Amino acid sequence: MKFEIMELFFARPEDIAGEVINLDEFEQKHLVQTLRKSAGSAVHVTDGEGNLFVTRLVETRPRARLTIVSREQQQRIGPRIGMAVGFIRPNRLDFILEKGTELGVDEFFLVRSIHSNYASNNMNRYYKILRQALKQSNRFYIPRIIFPADVRHLAESTRNYAQRIVAVSAGYSSLLNSLRRPAELSSHSLLIAIGPEGGFSDQELHIFEQDHFDPVSLGTARLRSETAAISAIAAAQQFFSS
Amino acid sequence: MKFEIMELFFARPEDIAGEVINLDEFEQKHLVQTLRKSAGSAVHVTDGEGNLFVTRLVETRPRARLTIVSREQQQRIGPRIGMAVGFIRPNRLDFILEKGTELGVDEFFLVRSIHSNYASNNMNRYYKILRQALKQSNRFYIPRIIFPADVRHLAESTRNYAQRIVAVSAGYSSLLNSLRRPAELSSHSLLIAIGPEGGFSDQELHIFEQDHFDPVSLGTARLRSETAAISAIAAAQQFFSS
Repeated sequence: MKFEIMELFFARPEDIAGEVINLDEFEQKHLVQTLRKSAGSAVHVTDGEGNLFVTRLVETRPRARLTIVSREQQQRIGPRIGMAVGFIRPNRLDFILEKGTELGVDEFFLVRSIHSNYASNNMNRYYKILRQALKQSNRFYIPRIIFPADVRHLAESTRNYAQRIVAVSAGYSSLLNSLRRPAELSSHSLLIAIGPEGGFSDQELHIFEQDHFDPVSLGTARLRSETAAISAIAAAQQFFSS
Repeated sequence: MKFEIMELFFARPEDIAGEVINLDEFEQKHLVQTLRKSAGSAVHVTDGEGNLFVTRLVETRPRARLTIVSREQQQRIGPRIGMAVGFIRPNRLDFILEKGTELGVDEFFLVRSIHSNYASNNMNRYYKILRQALKQSNRFYIPRIIFPADVRHLAESTRNYAQRIVAVSAGYSSLLNSLRRPAELSSHSLLIAIGPEGGFSDQELHIFEQDHFDPVSLGTARLRSETAAISAIAAAQQFFSS
């Protein structure tokens, strides 16, 4: 945890034109009404594509208009992290998106798994959660969300990950004993797959096995899917930063 | 994750008299209205004191009345885990209590820290969250909640932990490199302290240092207090199960 607090704002690519940024209504409220910033203030903005803009607030109404003073492309730090999860109830999925973003997930794969009894491609809703979590955690790359139609598509679309892990029941090797530590962390990539409530089906686990996912155990406790997901990401990030 | 699902119910000590358990209104609704169990059904109950009762449902109204068929004292597994956290906003504190219970926290220390701008000893509210999380995660020991008046009291009241850790800013040793692995895990104990939003004050950090807490870094990302707390517990549990 760093404790210096920099308020970070979010601009969609379409909000940025040349040297001018027009914040959308949501950001405008945060900047002008909540934080009561007035013209002349310095404001930090990211586009979620790795850019950090230092800007100056020119106009607060009707829209907050900023001029760009400097821009800096931020480096990604650490390995690329993918989180695949069978669809679970919306509020629990929101939790994975929010906390996963804070913990540095780069790609979310939301999968229609056999035991999922819910699915939604509501990108608007998801995007709002991601950008809030991005701002909150001072990150500069907004995660991508991908919707594989099933576990087979998930397996096929994640073969570019250096290591892929699927959480299964007890009796397998532990997560920390299974993680690989490459010499070059920043070029490494790790995908972790977590089943929906009820877990992946035997047939789905067979697909993971055939596609060379490493099965791991997250311990003997019964964890909700979203707790298992965040638990695995947190442990992996601690592993990579140790 | 184990995937066999056993529905576990909760009875307070005062609900249990001899061989009879009278579920409270909340559990009664879950059992009779949600799950539609009828007289004769087998029902698993814990008292949160380590007991698992196998019972038979005798009467569903006005209160669900159960007779105890067998009782078994469950072993605690793994080290004793303490989670100390500076007071943060209620919904974020709820999150720590819920997920911490799922992840096996035995004691929560909710501390009035210098940077806390909120505090509440509302045990009723906390207790509801704990018992729900206990049922959910098939655990048998309900965590204790302790309210140290300040960081000094926290330090004094946790000296019975074998290792105590405080999360501080980057530049210190990582969590996983700092954890000790004793020969006998079940007699081990670990306390992790996480500051409120804004972190512990320098004065508070000085108290931790004098009381021989190990300062650790949770990485370079800016994490919300509740994410840091759950992240640290999850990583520690993965460490102990590896």
